[in-house]
Amino acid sequence: MEAIQVIRDLVIANRTCRRFYQDVAIERETLRELVDLARLSASGGNRQPLKYILACDPQKNALIFQYLVWAGALKDWPGPSEGERPSAYIVILGDTEIAKSFGGDHQIAAQSIRLGAREKGLGGCMHAMARNDGLSKALGIQPRYELLLVVSLGKPKEKVVLETVGPDGDTRYWRDSDNVHHVPKRRLDDIIIG
Amino acid sequence: MEAIQVIRDLVIANRTCRRFYQDVAIERETLRELVDLARLSASGGNRQPLKYILACDPQKNALIFQYLVWAGALKDWPGPSEGERPSAYIVILGDTEIAKSFGGDHQIAAQSIRLGAREKGLGGCMHAMARNDGLSKALGIQPRYELLLVVSLGKPKEKVVLETVGPDGDTRYWRDSDNVHHVPKRRLDDIIIG
Repeated sequence: MEAIQVIRDLVIANRTCRRFYQDVAIERETLRELVDLARLSASGGNRQPLKYILACDPQKNALIFQYLVWAGALKDWPGPSEGERPSAYIVILGDTEIAKSFGGDHQIAAQSIRLGAREKGLGGCMHAMARNDGLSKALGIQPRYELLLVVSLGKPKEKVVLETVGPDGDTRYWRDSDNVHHVPKRRLDDIIIG
Repeated sequence: MEAIQVIRDLVIANRTCRRFYQDVAIERETLRELVDLARLSASGGNRQPLKYILACDPQKNALIFQYLVWAGALKDWPGPSEGERPSAYIVILGDTEIAKSFGGDHQIAAQSIRLGAREKGLGGCMHAMARNDGLSKALGIQPRYELLLVVSLGKPKEKVVLETVGPDGDTRYWRDSDNVHHVPKRRLDDIIIG
């Protein structure tokens, strides 16, 4: 059986990124290619209730940015400064005229988007957005659409290191004095229980 | 910017599969490699509340099989016959001692698992399992763990064709007289709304 090297490399490289080279623009066509990966991914009962709004210009980006929450575990860090913010966003909506609940369609979509983005040299972050009325209003989203998730995207400007969780079991990510972002992951043998 | 050809090819090839060469065994080590992809994927707040149970022997497989629901849209088809059933399963649990809700961690995990499986030439299906007390009991799962999702895996024995949804907008998958499975996907321009 062949190795799963390509996917494994991408999954490992595909770390959440929160600081970017903001001046490196992302074209709308690139975002469309990424949404196409989501479009072709699995959907519960194949209902495909997800809809997408794209943003890649400074004005729309700034509007979306103010509604995002960044790095809950880094209490002293409010999010990326001007100049290190995402160059683009994909806003994922659930169309309630197609389905009343969306299972995990949006996370499946977001994972396909992020793996595709990684292959293009882009990093990003998934922002859970349930019940964020402010952003819905700001974007003029009709009540028919439920705001589910925002994927922020940009050229990564931070170093992220995967490591093994310590004996205290603390999984919180942290930053060292060089601003390297450390992500402790549980051991494989600790998560397979049968 | 480089093409996203590898991920795109995998996402397209990664169709839900429901009939398999049941006699082609899958080793436990293969399942561990796939769970490792899930382990290294994003987790909300990096809490990593997911745990896994693996099955790849005929007895445990038969036990799990009886609790699965197959292809809701194919009303006359109760699921794969003996001989065409999955060779393995990955059962995804949420550890309530780590988190009370699991966001979409399990769907992100399942998408990584399925893309890795596809790269190994395996197909599969995600079975949403919320509140399936029968399977929890049969597997002896402690109340601490919430049953979230089962990924069935095997060597694909069915042809799946992606096509564009017709003018009636019907997204239900269907099988033709040659047992080819057709999956209508919405157009990219119909799902990008802004």
